[in-house]
Amino acid sequence: MQTERDKSVIQSKSISNDDLELIKLISEKIRIACNIASGELQLHEPSFEGNEWKYVKDCLDSGWVSSVGKYVDAFEAKLCEITGSKRAIAVSNGTSALHIALRLAGVLPGEEVLVPSITFVATANAISYVQAIPHFVDSSVSNLGVCPLKLKAWLKCSTKVEGDSLINTATGRRISALIVVHVLGHSADLDAIQEVCEEFHLKMIEDAAEALGTFYKGRHVGNDGILSCLSFNGNKTVTTGGGGAILTNDETIGDLAKHITTTAKIPHSWNFFHDQLGFNYRMPNINAALGLAQLEKLPEFLSRKRKLAEAYEKVFSNIEGVQFFKAPVYSNSNHWLNALLLKEGILEALLDCTYQQQIFARPLWTPMHKLPMYVNCPKQKLDNAEWLFKTLLLFPAAQN
Amino acid sequence: MQTERDKSVIQSKSISNDDLELIKLISEKIRIACNIASGELQLHEPSFEGNEWKYVKDCLDSGWVSSVGKYVDAFEAKLCEITGSKRAIAVSNGTSALHIALRLAGVLPGEEVLVPSITFVATANAISYVQAIPHFVDSSVSNLGVCPLKLKAWLKCSTKVEGDSLINTATGRRISALIVVHVLGHSADLDAIQEVCEEFHLKMIEDAAEALGTFYKGRHVGNDGILSCLSFNGNKTVTTGGGGAILTNDETIGDLAKHITTTAKIPHSWNFFHDQLGFNYRMPNINAALGLAQLEKLPEFLSRKRKLAEAYEKVFSNIEGVQFFKAPVYSNSNHWLNALLLKEGILEALLDCTYQQQIFARPLWTPMHKLPMYVNCPKQKLDNAEWLFKTLLLFPAAQN
Repeated sequence: MQTERDKSVIQSKSISNDDLELIKLISEKIRIACNIASGELQLHEPSFEGNEWKYVKDCLDSGWVSSVGKYVDAFEAKLCEITGSKRAIAVSNGTSALHIALRLAGVLPGEEVLVPSITFVATANAISYVQAIPHFVDSSVSNLGVCPLKLKAWLKCSTKVEGDSLINTATGRRISALIVVHVLGHSADLDAIQEVCEEFHLKMIEDAAEALGTFYKGRHVGNDGILSCLSFNGNKTVTTGGGGAILTNDETIGDLAKHITTTAKIPHSWNFFHDQLGFNYRMPNINAALGLAQLEKLPEFLSRKRKLAEAYEKVFSNIEGVQFFKAPVYSNSNHWLNALLLKEGILEALLDCTYQQQIFARPLWTPMHKLPMYVNCPKQKLDNAEWLFKTLLLFPAAQN
Repeated sequence: MQTERDKSVIQSKSISNDDLELIKLISEKIRIACNIASGELQLHEPSFEGNEWKYVKDCLDSGWVSSVGKYVDAFEAKLCEITGSKRAIAVSNGTSALHIALRLAGVLPGEEVLVPSITFVATANAISYVQAIPHFVDSSVSNLGVCPLKLKAWLKCSTKVEGDSLINTATGRRISALIVVHVLGHSADLDAIQEVCEEFHLKMIEDAAEALGTFYKGRHVGNDGILSCLSFNGNKTVTTGGGGAILTNDETIGDLAKHITTTAKIPHSWNFFHDQLGFNYRMPNINAALGLAQLEKLPEFLSRKRKLAEAYEKVFSNIEGVQFFKAPVYSNSNHWLNALLLKEGILEALLDCTYQQQIFARPLWTPMHKLPMYVNCPKQKLDNAEWLFKTLLLFPAAQN
């Protein structure tokens, strides 16, 4: 007998009976895996079981909730300790971190910046903020990051090197940088990508918004780019309410990043003098207080997320038409979100089904080259991106 | 006998003995006034004596600290109630509010925007963010806002109207908007300025960052501009840690402001699709929770600030060479910061003296046309701005 739920799926899509059975099986398995792990069916749910209250209350009691206060410094120091990066600059969110990273990498208006089409929209938007043009590249189906082989082949056939500059032969514009994105917390293949960047005179920036706690061949991500970005939005492994950070191993860039994200004011006991165009991207002290308490719990959060990934892998190990997406072998991933690779044609109906059961799964972001503001941007053939968008299901990973 | 303090003042400046006596007298009077009022000598100090902890704790307990949650909606509704504005959109800070206001007012790259040279740097920076050029105008010595008379005279002699556009005859660029700033919480002369804007086809935006609780002829500031901006930084009358808001009485603009400050995502149960270039300027729920509790106390904060201003006025009523800066008669000011107009030549030495006594006074911001990034921008003669910068002392107003 068909339930109401089944009917709605059948009505909305032309799905075979076999696929309908598969969809029901998968959604049931997700439910089982979630229950094994935690009983939580939200995609993301932060956990506040450490010093969050204590630190936030200390902020309120001391009156230091805003731009001055000890928690921003402590939060930044803790980030350096965790990532091994020389400098961490706390900012208002991952988007502002990306904006400043591109600015300080020296990307100029009218230049192109290579960026995977599979990413959250902020990565492409940040390129627009510096009046540069996103140039979309394809993703690897094994790690979801920029595919170094496809990147190299594309640059070979579509660009030329003039002096120290890489020129897009079709548009005549300089291509100055590449943003590597560590998608779902899995590390991109940094060594191979770095090699391409060197060959083609590209500056590398890492968007590690989803990847706090992820290591690539033993080093924490965010240390290979000139500048890298983290996010502490509410859906991330660690949250500050809203927040982000810029990482860099260059002290001069670190100083400048701090300076221009805090209005470029020259320190003085009473004068307000700003020596260049600055931004108000600082993280308020109250948000840093929350974040510090969260960072203290990071090892626990990561351990739970890894256990959850293992549970999912087990549950989905023997179902035809479905494959649990495993972290690449070189990556000790934070498993920010878990994913299934599905056979083609069932994703939308499965999402409909899980949604009705209040399991909040979702697909990847709509690829950037499909968004109206980026539809005319330069791009390579994006077969993998389009295939991943049609076949990848992201599902509950709430395990903080 | 000279104290160490006196010597340092004398050494650093060539100050007459009479002026030195005056400086000592003023700094003593500031101390007395502060003590009368509260005993506080900080320029700004937030007060958390209402529901701050209750609401913030509720955020932590519920897990909703970030971009989703009830406090942002409640905070926005309360702002509408207080200001009488149809729409209030909570954002990350006053700077981002200004950026979006200029964008939604339709200011285009390469256009000029009129702005007083006497303002916090964010006002001019926001103009740069939309790739427009600040065009500095002078301030009124009676209310510290844009001087409508000088503005009109300047536009008459330096611009021409072509169709619906105002053109700067010297640069050939269109001048599309004027930002009115309500400096120190005192309202600018909105009616007179509005009249000039109409005559010269200028869109008006209000920077009311410092002016929550300030009324102009009975209406709350921020209702005359197409869009207006508030700030809730830690130094403001009401704080959210870091935060701001966009006000507008145009529902369509209000919808768009909410949309593009929250990444321009089209609402959908699982898909991530963004229909235009958006920004991540949302105010996190935890900051809105703090802000809501603060807004509930606004009447008390304002009442205390007004009493403090009265205390200051009394203390400084009979000293030659010093004049307490009174709010303009048409303005029911929030008295965000109090100020003294000093005789010329003593400001720097007085600041040195108060600083050594740990009274945190300060001058106005360095006028924008003196900052390296804006030194070559178009401007009218800025006599008042330069005089105010040399003679105005801002001093402790912590009275939340």
